[in-house]
Amino acid sequence: MRVEFRLSGSGGQGLLLAGITLAEAAIYAGKNAVQTQSYGPEARGGSSKAEVVISDEEIDYPKATDPDFLLALTNDAYKTYGPMMAKGLIITDTSVTLDPAIKARTVALPILSSAAEKVGKKVVANMVALGVLGGLSGVAPKEILKKAVVARVPKGTDELNVKALEVGLELAAQSGAASK
Amino acid sequence: MRVEFRLSGSGGQGLLLAGITLAEAAIYAGKNAVQTQSYGPEARGGSSKAEVVISDEEIDYPKATDPDFLLALTNDAYKTYGPMMAKGLIITDTSVTLDPAIKARTVALPILSSAAEKVGKKVVANMVALGVLGGLSGVAPKEILKKAVVARVPKGTDELNVKALEVGLELAAQSGAASK
Repeated sequence: MRVEFRLSGSGGQGLLLAGITLAEAAIYAGKNAVQTQSYGPEARGGSSKAEVVISDEEIDYPKATDPDFLLALTNDAYKTYGPMMAKGLIITDTSVTLDPAIKARTVALPILSSAAEKVGKKVVANMVALGVLGGLSGVAPKEILKKAVVARVPKGTDELNVKALEVGLELAAQSGAASK
Repeated sequence: MRVEFRLSGSGGQGLLLAGITLAEAAIYAGKNAVQTQSYGPEARGGSSKAEVVISDEEIDYPKATDPDFLLALTNDAYKTYGPMMAKGLIITDTSVTLDPAIKARTVALPILSSAAEKVGKKVVANMVALGVLGGLSGVAPKEILKKAVVARVPKGTDELNVKALEVGLELAAQSGAASK
């Protein structure tokens, strides 16, 4: 079992923290994980990409080569990484304009607006996204995801971030795109 | 120019944040960077390892294969990663017991005690370490390291963390181990 995640969006969306927390949840669940953040010319353009590879085995190659899950929170991220998707599932924010030329299985979920409206803080969209990815992939159970969030977010923001995680888990459950 | 860093120590030392900040400073300095955190059985033992690769070119392989700099803040980290060092420099905390069988060039610096005594907060040892690594490697100038720290640490802790960075830069300058 090797599951590859690519989290993409804009620089301020906190996707690195979402990736780190996903990796740490997998560890709490007894798996191996590698989290990678690549910076480069595209990072300077304001875009952001974090990757997480989770496996029951040792992880030889730490990068996502054929992601099982692509999270794309912005049009730019969708247009950049969507065309590379083969077997995996694309999860976009509903604000992203879908392109029929991108053939991979895609589900659009209100990640950004749910953070703003259901949790009351746009900045926790990353934890909503974490809930979506955790829920759809099943790499760690809800209680372990929660533990990883509490261990990683700044003190005093636990409650807000856990609420965001739960909103994401709900979005995943309602999406009809649950994991194989 | 490809420079590889391995930051190792115990779980609570914040070395992942130090690695992220180092990578981001390199980006601000116009370079490419990849930051990797590998978790696995050893992570469960309480140890922590983060890697950063910085290059003027595109980075094909994101992991450190022959580190230029190994930071080892604990005995366990030193014993685990020290023997793998070939061409690079080992930077240990002065609390680490050196082993003559580990032949790589080594400099021991009071990273943990400087955080506690000169900055007044043990938890900023990671930013002292960042100052040491930034200073010894020269991958980003001081002002850019400072900018990266301020951009990444929790709001309200800027001053403390920048102070820690400066203490680390001083340790590097006084160490006599400056970069090739």
